[in-house]
Amino acid sequence: MTPPLLSQFGFFTLGTIGYIDLIAATTNAFNGALLARKPNYYKHFTTIGVIILAYAGGIGGGVIRDVLINKVPSPLINPWYLIACLLAAWLALVIEYNIGQRFKDGLFAFMTAFSLPWYAIVGAQAAVDAHLGYAAAVLIGVIATTGGRWIIDSACNLVPHQLVQSRFFVVTAALTAILYLIMREAMGLSVIVSTIVAFIFGFGFRLLAQALNWEQWEPWEPPSLKTAEQKPDTLGESLRTEFRPRS
Amino acid sequence: MTPPLLSQFGFFTLGTIGYIDLIAATTNAFNGALLARKPNYYKHFTTIGVIILAYAGGIGGGVIRDVLINKVPSPLINPWYLIACLLAAWLALVIEYNIGQRFKDGLFAFMTAFSLPWYAIVGAQAAVDAHLGYAAAVLIGVIATTGGRWIIDSACNLVPHQLVQSRFFVVTAALTAILYLIMREAMGLSVIVSTIVAFIFGFGFRLLAQALNWEQWEPWEPPSLKTAEQKPDTLGESLRTEFRPRS
Amino acid sequence: MTPPLLSQFGFFTLGTIGYIDLIAATTNAFNGALLARKPNYYKHFTTIGVIILAYAGGIGGGVIRDVLINKVPSPLINPWYLIACLLAAWLALVIEYNIGQRFKDGLFAFMTAFSLPWYAIVGAQAAVDAHLGYAAAVLIGVIATTGGRWIIDSACNLVPHQLVQSRFFVVTAALTAILYLIMREAMGLSVIVSTIVAFIFGFGFRLLAQALNWEQWEPWEPPSLKTAEQKPDTLGESLRTEFRPRS
Repeated sequence: MTPPLLSQFGFFTLGTIGYIDLIAATTNAFNGALLARKPNYYKHFTTIGVIILAYAGGIGGGVIRDVLINKVPSPLINPWYLIACLLAAWLALVIEYNIGQRFKDGLFAFMTAFSLPWYAIVGAQAAVDAHLGYAAAVLIGVIATTGGRWIIDSACNLVPHQLVQSRFFVVTAALTAILYLIMREAMGLSVIVSTIVAFIFGFGFRLLAQALNWEQWEPWEPPSLKTAEQKPDTLGESLRTEFRPRS
Repeated sequence: MTPPLLSQFGFFTLGTIGYIDLIAATTNAFNGALLARKPNYYKHFTTIGVIILAYAGGIGGGVIRDVLINKVPSPLINPWYLIACLLAAWLALVIEYNIGQRFKDGLFAFMTAFSLPWYAIVGAQAAVDAHLGYAAAVLIGVIATTGGRWIIDSACNLVPHQLVQSRFFVVTAALTAILYLIMREAMGLSVIVSTIVAFIFGFGFRLLAQALNWEQWEPWEPPSLKTAEQKPDTLGESLRTEFRPRS
Repeated sequence: MTPPLLSQFGFFTLGTIGYIDLIAATTNAFNGALLARKPNYYKHFTTIGVIILAYAGGIGGGVIRDVLINKVPSPLINPWYLIACLLAAWLALVIEYNIGQRFKDGLFAFMTAFSLPWYAIVGAQAAVDAHLGYAAAVLIGVIATTGGRWIIDSACNLVPHQLVQSRFFVVTAALTAILYLIMREAMGLSVIVSTIVAFIFGFGFRLLAQALNWEQWEPWEPPSLKTAEQKPDTLGESLRTEFRPRS
């Protein structure tokens, strides 16, 4: 017998990829609500504001993915996305209120890693289903994974996380999508097996990157920044600068 | 006899919802131009910049709505959207230049409320026409209503209005969409009657919220913000902090 | 005999407009990477961050254009967009590292003008191919040309370039799109001829605007900004302000 509440609104018609998509939305909404409460993100949001940011983080990536492959976004077709994200946002606010700072840091680090791989997997699969190439599938996996965070960071007037030191945020998403595609398309494994392995890899890789503080390669500072602070090295040089003829 | 100018470019082929959509775009473009001229928004925009922000506020919500329901945006199909928004932006600049500060504040408060309900109504109807569910219809109504403002605030480097104290901006949009859907779908009223009632409700509710300064629920400050400002409570505690052994 | 590498992934199936689109993406990606390295843009980006901004600038405009005309974005269909943008970003970083400041300023001014007209042309043609009107075609040309820059500026926490003094950034895009449409649609010239003429016009117009420092029309400052700095004009007025009865 199916639970009457869940059978409402087509919960059982989602399909395997649909359930993974729902997990992606829910975990990212939970993560988004936690994010909005971090001191460097918090901008005197109202409760509705935090819920909107949770939705942005939760369904944002999935909506962008479906817009790119030219479909009506899945969160608009099945209402369980909206219900699950609301519950996740509410749960995050309740938990965040009741736990101490140390546990909070741990929960946040865990959820940041735990919520990451899902959209990389669904995005890659959705692109393949839309008959796009593998490069596009990896790109869509990355955009779906990181798009929600871009919206949240941008709304909080921060530079998007993917552009700065971020413990291999984008790299983890890309590697997870690639690993999933290799298992699913090249090795012919099932969606469930490919998802489980790719999830474990992405989750573990991100946890490691966080725990070991892996630094991403940063290019040299723009020369003009250095020039602005440059002082003449010697008194002679300083005088020559001072008295050089106007050109 | 139809006016020759208006019959150009298919003004008379818009249909009832099309006219409401055009009102939505025009009033929001007017509001967007006023917004761009507010001191806390103004960032040394050029006149073209103000017109672009008027377009962002005017057709932004409608474009996002139609992208979400996977249609070519209506402002790209009928050129009257572009003409009406340009006229609205020009009118807003002329009026804003010629009136005093007190009347300006009144005009802005009036237009903020007057421009709000239209997109909630058109968005909800468009979602129903696209065979989406009622939860999605309310969501699309809210996104269409508030999407343009998000773009403007974001471009002006401000936190989007919907996330902070905003006199029930998002709530008014949601309630207007819900009321419209109840009248149109549950009670079977016509588009025109449902629109008029939903508009009066949304306009009045927003005016009340502004006039009575209704505050939205804001969650507790993030604890870390408070921790940062915490001082030791007693002298003994202060000394223990000062002289505790380095770990 | 076709080069084996290029024939991979359908390089020779792009068609005339496809090649112009590829030039648009590549030159804008090159420009985007240079932009991300400018001192006022640079926000301690990682190398991956600079590459993401190059992609945003490179394929951003094309993706928005295709989403608006309700198609799967061309950069997701043909992988050469992704390859060419990556090469352009890498080339921009290498060149930027190896040249002096004066040549750098010249290169940047040149690329800003050189990368501008392409998307205006492709955007206008794509809109016409999608059976949209000429006003919409110009608008899509402008959005495709300037959309990538909006994403980059917004990510770098700057006011989008199109809203402020920008050496006729938006006007050049609009004029290029209009000129292309006149040649292609009214005069019936071929895509190649129309593109070459429109490109030369747009490139030259933008170079002139930059070289001659053309200023765009800026509206009067918002009165409230001035009011905030207003001091009483006379001592008597100052005293009257001080001692006026509380109302």
